[in-house]
Amino acid sequence: MRDFFGEAERRRQYVLSVCRRVFERYGFEPLETPALEELGLLAKKGAGGADVEGEIYSFKDKGGRELGMRFDLTVPLARFVASNPQLTKPFKRYAVGKVWRYDRPQKGRYREFMQADADIVGVAGMLAEFEVLASTVEVFNSLGLEFFIRVNNRALLEGLAKSCGVPAGKVADCLRCIDKQDKLGWKGVCREFKGKKINEKIVAVLEKGGSLDTVAKIVGEKNTGVKAMRELLALLEEAGLGRYVKFDASLARGLEYYTGSVFEVMVAGVSCGGGGRYDGLVKLYGGQDTPAVGISYGIDRLVDAAGDKIGMPVRAGKVLVAAVGGGPVQNTALKIAAELRAAAAAVGVEAVIESDLLGRNISKNLEYANKRGFTRVVVVGERELKTGKVTVKDMQSGKEQMVARKDIAGVTG
Amino acid sequence: MRDFFGEAERRRQYVLSVCRRVFERYGFEPLETPALEELGLLAKKGAGGADVEGEIYSFKDKGGRELGMRFDLTVPLARFVASNPQLTKPFKRYAVGKVWRYDRPQKGRYREFMQADADIVGVAGMLAEFEVLASTVEVFNSLGLEFFIRVNNRALLEGLAKSCGVPAGKVADCLRCIDKQDKLGWKGVCREFKGKKINEKIVAVLEKGGSLDTVAKIVGEKNTGVKAMRELLALLEEAGLGRYVKFDASLARGLEYYTGSVFEVMVAGVSCGGGGRYDGLVKLYGGQDTPAVGISYGIDRLVDAAGDKIGMPVRAGKVLVAAVGGGPVQNTALKIAAELRAAAAAVGVEAVIESDLLGRNISKNLEYANKRGFTRVVVVGERELKTGKVTVKDMQSGKEQMVARKDIAGVTG
Repeated sequence: MRDFFGEAERRRQYVLSVCRRVFERYGFEPLETPALEELGLLAKKGAGGADVEGEIYSFKDKGGRELGMRFDLTVPLARFVASNPQLTKPFKRYAVGKVWRYDRPQKGRYREFMQADADIVGVAGMLAEFEVLASTVEVFNSLGLEFFIRVNNRALLEGLAKSCGVPAGKVADCLRCIDKQDKLGWKGVCREFKGKKINEKIVAVLEKGGSLDTVAKIVGEKNTGVKAMRELLALLEEAGLGRYVKFDASLARGLEYYTGSVFEVMVAGVSCGGGGRYDGLVKLYGGQDTPAVGISYGIDRLVDAAGDKIGMPVRAGKVLVAAVGGGPVQNTALKIAAELRAAAAAVGVEAVIESDLLGRNISKNLEYANKRGFTRVVVVGERELKTGKVTVKDMQSGKEQMVARKDIAGVTG
Repeated sequence: MRDFFGEAERRRQYVLSVCRRVFERYGFEPLETPALEELGLLAKKGAGGADVEGEIYSFKDKGGRELGMRFDLTVPLARFVASNPQLTKPFKRYAVGKVWRYDRPQKGRYREFMQADADIVGVAGMLAEFEVLASTVEVFNSLGLEFFIRVNNRALLEGLAKSCGVPAGKVADCLRCIDKQDKLGWKGVCREFKGKKINEKIVAVLEKGGSLDTVAKIVGEKNTGVKAMRELLALLEEAGLGRYVKFDASLARGLEYYTGSVFEVMVAGVSCGGGGRYDGLVKLYGGQDTPAVGISYGIDRLVDAAGDKIGMPVRAGKVLVAAVGGGPVQNTALKIAAELRAAAAAVGVEAVIESDLLGRNISKNLEYANKRGFTRVVVVGERELKTGKVTVKDMQSGKEQMVARKDIAGVTG
């Protein structure tokens, strides 16, 4: 688990604000659920699968209740929908928050991480997938990033496995192995197959990165996964979003609850988000049988992968106001700082205006301004008080100018 | 612990965004720390006091490490400063996040709650208190709320206790009782005093709500608390902020770590935040002896207390785009939705544009639009496709008009 400070945290917050803004624009509503849920709920069979179960931070509270820290934002959503059957459908919600997994720490993986999710509950058709992917394209475009989204369908992959001689009882195992391809490579997957006595034929098809047509020839056009993929890709193509999406028959996604489409967002070769259709999850939590599709971005992985490629808006001026002297000089300096803030706020400029709080001399103030990346320093002293003008030093050029009190607002620009 | 959905969550997020914006403008930098800290750190004697210690959610992780969920944002800050001695001082940070306390649930108190904090580390003088309070005034003014801030100083209150015959060994106990005045009333405080054999004389002074002058006459002008209060109130008065601040000699604040000034923000008769000076905390965590002042807003209590008095910005239009028919009609409807979103985004309008995802008929779409509070419904059908115009229904007036495709952007207004 990590601390985030200053620019690093500001970048994370910026990414989250872009996610929120885009999701809102698509009509998703915010949902915030607690960090702690009943353990029984989190560890329910079929929710996260055996892998996740071992990774839940869990404990008994002082009242003896077994609690766990949420490991994703999807299970709390399913719990919320199941226990609020009156919700208007389609129910579109987004969520932003931390989740926790007791994982072996490794590069790009942490035990506490930030997710941003968007989900649509109550839509069985491909328009739901379309909306989730269209909003995802808008999020990543708004961040100014190069990216693409891998898409596939579990029914298609399952059909392919069966066509390649994998018996029904071993299909789930087969998919889990394929899901490890990123880490193990195809040779590693074959080794796993050997250990589990699974026919390796499917690897030959997937390794070639077969097109949808190729795969459709093997499993047949009537395969529900093939039909769904064709429909989704046509919608995306028609909307001009085809270039952001790449069909990839080898995409499996680890989580047990996916039932149809699966997605994965790739930025700079790193998986920064994923999702898919999970039609059974709401029912699993005691709700009505309700279709659902969603996507989840791993904000920390995204920020780590994209770094300063994330197109943050240029910040306005950073001004330090320093009083050289106490009493009326200091009071005037505090007033000038307040005026600068009010002026910036009035025109919606997000300037930073700081007062010297330590009564430092000019050179110490300049040193501090330099360290903290201030763009200008306003100096207020006895002379400035008498003339009604203040000294403004530009930290980049080093130039100084005298500015009249009444023109001070321009200093924040 | 609660779920927050839709407008309720949007209001919380709005309050947090105002806090962030104001803190940034004052030069505070964001710090995000993990939810979990080592238990030894959280339960350190002097950090939160015995009361808080019993309320920490704690457990051993699978590696046997004793962890606890943070109960405030101040202790993690002290840990961060202590372990990063190279930080430029003054170190000004803000933080926004959830904290957890295993408290008996009661009205306005929850086991998970959201805090927003601003702190200044490294300034011994009253300018730090001034900045913390000035930014607080700006936060609550920006939210459009009626509020005031109670201020006091521990040294003053301790001096008063001693002047009223409380022996040094019982002063801490005496303050803890006074802190309960909100809940117990002064009669209840007197009962507590009787039980602990503490002289009740101080109650007579506090009950009258004595001015700073009155109290100064009892404890003397040389009392460090009196001097600090005089200086702080003069700074605030000079800056035109005097009317937001009320000296209150009975304000004690529960937490053990406060060493000087203490604050409490009152909205609609409810305490929605508090803070003060805690010069010993960084040293307690192994850092250098470093003065510090901060404030913490209880966002959930604030939102509960202020409700719709919080001046949220008026939202732009909410538009539902409905296709009556599939194929090209649906594709056109999706394109119109995308155009509306792009138009809104281009001019920075935060409009909501939703597509019908269920292929509903017009009356079902209108019903849904009504339930979800949409302002307009755009209907696209075969006829609309032929004429190049779409039907726009205003949900408030019920009026319909035909709008040409090229003029569609105006619909989001």
